Amino acid sequence: MRLPFIDTADKAHRRRKINHTAEVEGKPIVFTTLVNMEVLKVIREGCRGMLLDMFGTFVHPLEEELGIKSNHRIGRFSDVSKSKEYHDRIEAINFSLVHDDGQSNRDLDSAEVILVGVSRSGKTPTSLYLAMQHGLKAANYPLIPEDFERQRLPAALLPHRKKIFGLSIQPERLSEIRNERRPNSRYASLDNCRMEVSEGEAMMRRSGIRWLSTTTKSIEEIATTILQEIRPERLIY
Amino acid sequence: MRLPFIDTADKAHRRRKINHTAEVEGKPIVFTTLVNMEVLKVIREGCRGMLLDMFGTFVHPLEEELGIKSNHRIGRFSDVSKSKEYHDRIEAINFSLVHDDGQSNRDLDSAEVILVGVSRSGKTPTSLYLAMQHGLKAANYPLIPEDFERQRLPAALLPHRKKIFGLSIQPERLSEIRNERRPNSRYASLDNCRMEVSEGEAMMRRSGIRWLSTTTKSIEEIATTILQEIRPERLIY
Repeated sequence: MRLPFIDTADKAHRRRKINHTAEVEGKPIVFTTLVNMEVLKVIREGCRGMLLDMFGTFVHPLEEELGIKSNHRIGRFSDVSKSKEYHDRIEAINFSLVHDDGQSNRDLDSAEVILVGVSRSGKTPTSLYLAMQHGLKAANYPLIPEDFERQRLPAALLPHRKKIFGLSIQPERLSEIRNERRPNSRYASLDNCRMEVSEGEAMMRRSGIRWLSTTTKSIEEIATTILQEIRPERLIY
Repeated sequence: MRLPFIDTADKAHRRRKINHTAEVEGKPIVFTTLVNMEVLKVIREGCRGMLLDMFGTFVHPLEEELGIKSNHRIGRFSDVSKSKEYHDRIEAINFSLVHDDGQSNRDLDSAEVILVGVSRSGKTPTSLYLAMQHGLKAANYPLIPEDFERQRLPAALLPHRKKIFGLSIQPERLSEIRNERRPNSRYASLDNCRMEVSEGEAMMRRSGIRWLSTTTKSIEEIATTILQEIRPERLIY
């Protein structure tokens, strides 16, 4: 159960829900991120759940260590929406959308990361995650059979090698994913997936591009690895 | 400084970086999410930073409360990538991309949220956030001058009123945002923005659609409000 926007002592009386749950279903575990101490006090008083204070637990030792008091202000997420960082993050999301799947070569200079890989290797969700979570302008570019024939990276990418990171995937898993999209197509066949993955990896090796296999990795892990490898200068979050 | 993937006692010797920082720049504050106790022990021993244990601090009381031991397993993010929830989340991201900006009317039945609002009111980042963070299939649909002339919601949306949520914005802020895109255009002019916002809000009121103003809100707050109002049946995160 989520109880968001508890920002006044008045609204804190919604802790009734906690005690009601305690009565009906057993003692609930309550995770709180409240920062206003008066509001927290209301929740705490007579609370029949186990209360875990995700912020306060660390704010108090930090106050002592740093020798300054937290102002315990609520609504920092609203402040964020007026900041340059937030503006840049929205810009990054828009950039990544416009530069999804090689849709645009314009402005690749301002990309901070360019992902390459065969179709359905995980480029799109990873690009959007890098933009949303880390405020990075992340373009992505598919490697297609024409590239394999030419045995060269798409020409538009050549000046940007330092920002390129490759995604690969096990052919068996790729075939499964593609079959959901286009069942029984040549595109989804295991043979074709094997060929594309092998050609894609050979090209990345030849071009000196760092890459990883996304087969058993979550977006979060893929993004963390990319940040470690590419080390973009600007990193908001 | 980020030190990811510290998953063996061996790699934990990277805590040298912590002590080096302590020497050169002063005592650092170290936030850790390590769950393997052996690895944590290596970091803790002789650590000259202030160590805040974001997981362990809560895991221990939870173990006591629940009367069970955490298995302290690392790599849960990798497990996630094999789960149905993860698969659904990737599907949600793809759905939201395909249904961005009214691009497709197909399959609106399976949308869990449909956002409407004038161009640049915040629909796209909010849809992608709902998909990425909460695994929701979120479509979005622009309200355009043609809709205002007809004084009706786009026909494709009429069967889905319960899932619709509106975003509005102050005309002054909207004009700023649009001017970055298309400077000095009629589209970005304050007069036109005033007209569109006023017509948009009138239409939402008339159609009984819940809505909020995004002017001073972050994506996180907008998404939380939408979840509160729409209460989708399926909510992964």
